[in-house]
Amino acid sequence: MSDILVVGSVAYDSIATPLGEVDRTLGGSANYFSLVASLFSPVKVVGVVGEDYEDRDLELLRTRSVDLEGLKRVVGKTFHWQGRYEADMNEAITLKTELNVFKDFNPTLPKTYSNSKYVFLANIDPELQIKVLDQVSEPRLVGADTMNFWIDSKRPQLLELLKRIDVLLINEAEARQLTGQWNIVQSVKTLTEWGPKAVVVKRGEYGFVLFSEGRHFILPAFPVAEVKDPTGAGDSFAGGFFGYLSRVDKGLSWPDLKQACMNGCLLASFTVEDFGLSALRGLKWPAIEGRRAQYEEVIR
Amino acid sequence: MSDILVVGSVAYDSIATPLGEVDRTLGGSANYFSLVASLFSPVKVVGVVGEDYEDRDLELLRTRSVDLEGLKRVVGKTFHWQGRYEADMNEAITLKTELNVFKDFNPTLPKTYSNSKYVFLANIDPELQIKVLDQVSEPRLVGADTMNFWIDSKRPQLLELLKRIDVLLINEAEARQLTGQWNIVQSVKTLTEWGPKAVVVKRGEYGFVLFSEGRHFILPAFPVAEVKDPTGAGDSFAGGFFGYLSRVDKGLSWPDLKQACMNGCLLASFTVEDFGLSALRGLKWPAIEGRRAQYEEVIR
Repeated sequence: MSDILVVGSVAYDSIATPLGEVDRTLGGSANYFSLVASLFSPVKVVGVVGEDYEDRDLELLRTRSVDLEGLKRVVGKTFHWQGRYEADMNEAITLKTELNVFKDFNPTLPKTYSNSKYVFLANIDPELQIKVLDQVSEPRLVGADTMNFWIDSKRPQLLELLKRIDVLLINEAEARQLTGQWNIVQSVKTLTEWGPKAVVVKRGEYGFVLFSEGRHFILPAFPVAEVKDPTGAGDSFAGGFFGYLSRVDKGLSWPDLKQACMNGCLLASFTVEDFGLSALRGLKWPAIEGRRAQYEEVIR
Repeated sequence: MSDILVVGSVAYDSIATPLGEVDRTLGGSANYFSLVASLFSPVKVVGVVGEDYEDRDLELLRTRSVDLEGLKRVVGKTFHWQGRYEADMNEAITLKTELNVFKDFNPTLPKTYSNSKYVFLANIDPELQIKVLDQVSEPRLVGADTMNFWIDSKRPQLLELLKRIDVLLINEAEARQLTGQWNIVQSVKTLTEWGPKAVVVKRGEYGFVLFSEGRHFILPAFPVAEVKDPTGAGDSFAGGFFGYLSRVDKGLSWPDLKQACMNGCLLASFTVEDFGLSALRGLKWPAIEGRRAQYEEVIR
């Protein structure tokens, strides 16, 4: 087992879906990732929050033994995202993005973080992702996510980042946007040619495509009967994926990559069953193992 | 092994996709279905063509020992469909539908067809699907497909049909339209409550959802690197599905239903690699078995 370092957003989200809405609920990629990954391995967080960030929200991660030394509290307000989903829960519609303290986020790692072995660079400015990576001395495994905004506005920096990571996790629309190729077989091939040893394309309820060293592994997501809020599903997937790999701690073997993806799907399936982080708060291994058995029934 | 009776369209299609176009190529659900299903079992076709239907197009099915006694040639022109696909090959855009001789299609089965055990009612007017079914004395297994047009215009007749079939094959958008439920877990449950013992929702490159007796089986399609033309993929899936079940001829056991779906996916993956029926013309078992092994690698 090895520690995982994650850098990403820590936020309050206001979300409306066909099944309800929540105002300023706890969110952000680093929170979703940490809550899931900490089920597998110790997690260290790099991020920034404002003066309005509630102590109980820090406490949530502390109860999971997440190391918060790298989470800075500064003057100003916490990042706030407002979005909604229509019937097609695979696509978020952003209504408002208030960067607040996140605008001047300039991640400096505590000394104790610099020897981290597993590093996940969640979806933030690729320049900052590189900056974090520069501060880790000898990472064993580096993963990253990104989004349409950075693909548009910071493509050269993103391509630079791709050369330095082992695994890219990206959603299907973004894989198409980044490569200019609609076909999934072609786009994952292109993405690995740009650097990463493995690419995982996240497809919402349609699951994922894993591609590494010329091989594909493709599965649907666990079929959830009531998706209340898909926010954080991708970051939960990443948490399960890196959580599994860091726990096994044997690199990127094909069987481990496959298991990592299945753990990613499994954990994400809980996230979408309730608003925000609610479903992850009390999640324990017996429930996960129970669903793992159900998931295997569905796909075998 | 048992014979399969299929009723459906026999057509000429004009198709444009991002990878090319073809004018008046052989198509129609009954042709796609028969070419695939005849790889497994003897097939009997019920349909209608016009005076312009070419002998070589009849010959194609005859070389596969397809029984064409139920394919009537009448005065007028053969059904013609013109459509195109944009980058998203999962959705056809209809440009023109010339029903021609199909407009007055009134299927009367040859006597030799009335004892057919496996019956596939491809996507035609549900009143005609019922009419065909009425002429089969003791079918062992009945399947049907439908489309948005009939869901809108002949809903009561379609619901009547559902009570009389064993398996419904339907695409995802149509399952949503028919049930009014977006969530796949909910919509397949509703569909089985309306009659069929099993429902298969076809999802294009995302594969299928099989639901029967409370159990789900979900897999992606085989990843095709170059989809030239998705026309006929659903009917090819149905051909592989019913072909397999009729060959095994043991009813609707869960393991056989699963295998039937995988055979459907496998056969459809060839269809989309070339325009119209081209990829199915010379298709032989060694190529299918080779791809079956590759497909199993991708999903296991």
